Amino acid sequence: MDSLSSIAELTAKVRAFAHERDWEQFHTPKNLAMALAGEVGELLAELQWLTPEQSAAVMDDPELGPGVRAELGDVTVYLVRLADVLGIDLVEAASDKLDEAGRRYTVEAALGSVAKISSVEP
Amino acid sequence: MDSLSSIAELTAKVRAFAHERDWEQFHTPKNLAMALAGEVGELLAELQWLTPEQSAAVMDDPELGPGVRAELGDVTVYLVRLADVLGIDLVEAASDKLDEAGRRYTVEAALGSVAKISSVEP
Amino acid sequence: MDSLSSIAELTAKVRAFAHERDWEQFHTPKNLAMALAGEVGELLAELQWLTPEQSAAVMDDPELGPGVRAELGDVTVYLVRLADVLGIDLVEAASDKLDEAGRRYTVEAALGSVAKISSVEP
Amino acid sequence: MDSLSSIAELTAKVRAFAHERDWEQFHTPKNLAMALAGEVGELLAELQWLTPEQSAAVMDDPELGPGVRAELGDVTVYLVRLADVLGIDLVEAASDKLDEAGRRYTVEAALGSVAKISSVEP
Repeated sequence: MDSLSSIAELTAKVRAFAHERDWEQFHTPKNLAMALAGEVGELLAELQWLTPEQSAAVMDDPELGPGVRAELGDVTVYLVRLADVLGIDLVEAASDKLDEAGRRYTVEAALGSVAKISSVEP
Repeated sequence: MDSLSSIAELTAKVRAFAHERDWEQFHTPKNLAMALAGEVGELLAELQWLTPEQSAAVMDDPELGPGVRAELGDVTVYLVRLADVLGIDLVEAASDKLDEAGRRYTVEAALGSVAKISSVEP
Repeated sequence: MDSLSSIAELTAKVRAFAHERDWEQFHTPKNLAMALAGEVGELLAELQWLTPEQSAAVMDDPELGPGVRAELGDVTVYLVRLADVLGIDLVEAASDKLDEAGRRYTVEAALGSVAKISSVEP
Repeated sequence: MDSLSSIAELTAKVRAFAHERDWEQFHTPKNLAMALAGEVGELLAELQWLTPEQSAAVMDDPELGPGVRAELGDVTVYLVRLADVLGIDLVEAASDKLDEAGRRYTVEAALGSVAKISSVEP
């Protein structure tokens, strides 16, 4: 296993994986978004019955921890692949949304407020 | 808006965003996984009625394209935040899962086969 | 607003709604499953920042309660429509799965156990 | 296996199933919404690589058909349980949302239009 240092390298690795198997034909944005949602569903299944406290300590659990890490890996694979197919820079898109959220929800207005956060994206 | 070059920088930016607003109390893995799923749901909503062909060209659409990019940004914000809270390296976790998938689904066995891909993760 | 007494009546109402608007062309199982997932994502968004206790009392909240009810309504509309398109009897399919789960997870083995429930479907 | 004729009977059956196993403690609205989303994720996984045409014929496939039916069953179990815990009448909630959608999207305005349907709930 090679060690990857960036999203760009991971993107190239996923692209090659799909290309070698001739899977590009299945990798429409629509299909990949469904696959992404399917993996997020598996992540939810790992956490669904845990209390908030148990979920905060989930990585210390020798059985649950690796499962959660594996699901985050799957989610990332599909997210990176989807972004590649769409030509979107994920870090830039996320940073832009964070800037936008920062303008809408100033520190003063949003401070520690669950009422405010309820209607916040993110 | 600053330009970020890596997941590490984005992670730090999201962490500071949450810290400034005293939102760490809401950011349990369980809550963040739900928020991630909610954003993936919004992404699905952007693509749900499109044909495969329309979805492949969605970024060329002046109305739909920016919406899809924004949803991918939101998904990335929560994914990065969740990984930060859990102490997981997303690129490494994804690369590991890809290596594992490569062993289970060799190029020869999986080549262009929708039957095979149906039961493939990814 | 008419009062419906059964899933069968609701199914007929949703079918007529789609037919009148000539939306059957969009209602493939794939598209409807995406729409269902999108609505479930909105439901998650209503509950994501609540504590377990807050979520248990959500219907008493004059702002949040109607929102949760509306999201459950949307989820039901798409689930019923998807089942109609696929020719599946939802109550029967659910009852069968429950019988199957009952055989796998006997009362004795599953009693009050979060460890057991973690790997249970349902 | 008994034959159920209504959502009310199914609701009672699911309630008894949870009660017998002392699982009520895990069945907060938050947890059940996550479980519902997890099952919808499994449904998406069944359909994700299919073309629209393949998805329309999925119930004719001896392998895929029963899987799709089983996932719809799981989704229904959790939806019915969630509605029971919240005290919501699913058929009524769905019918109300449909009436509301009908007022916003009149037949004349929405007729066969993908542009309109893109922003329609449902």
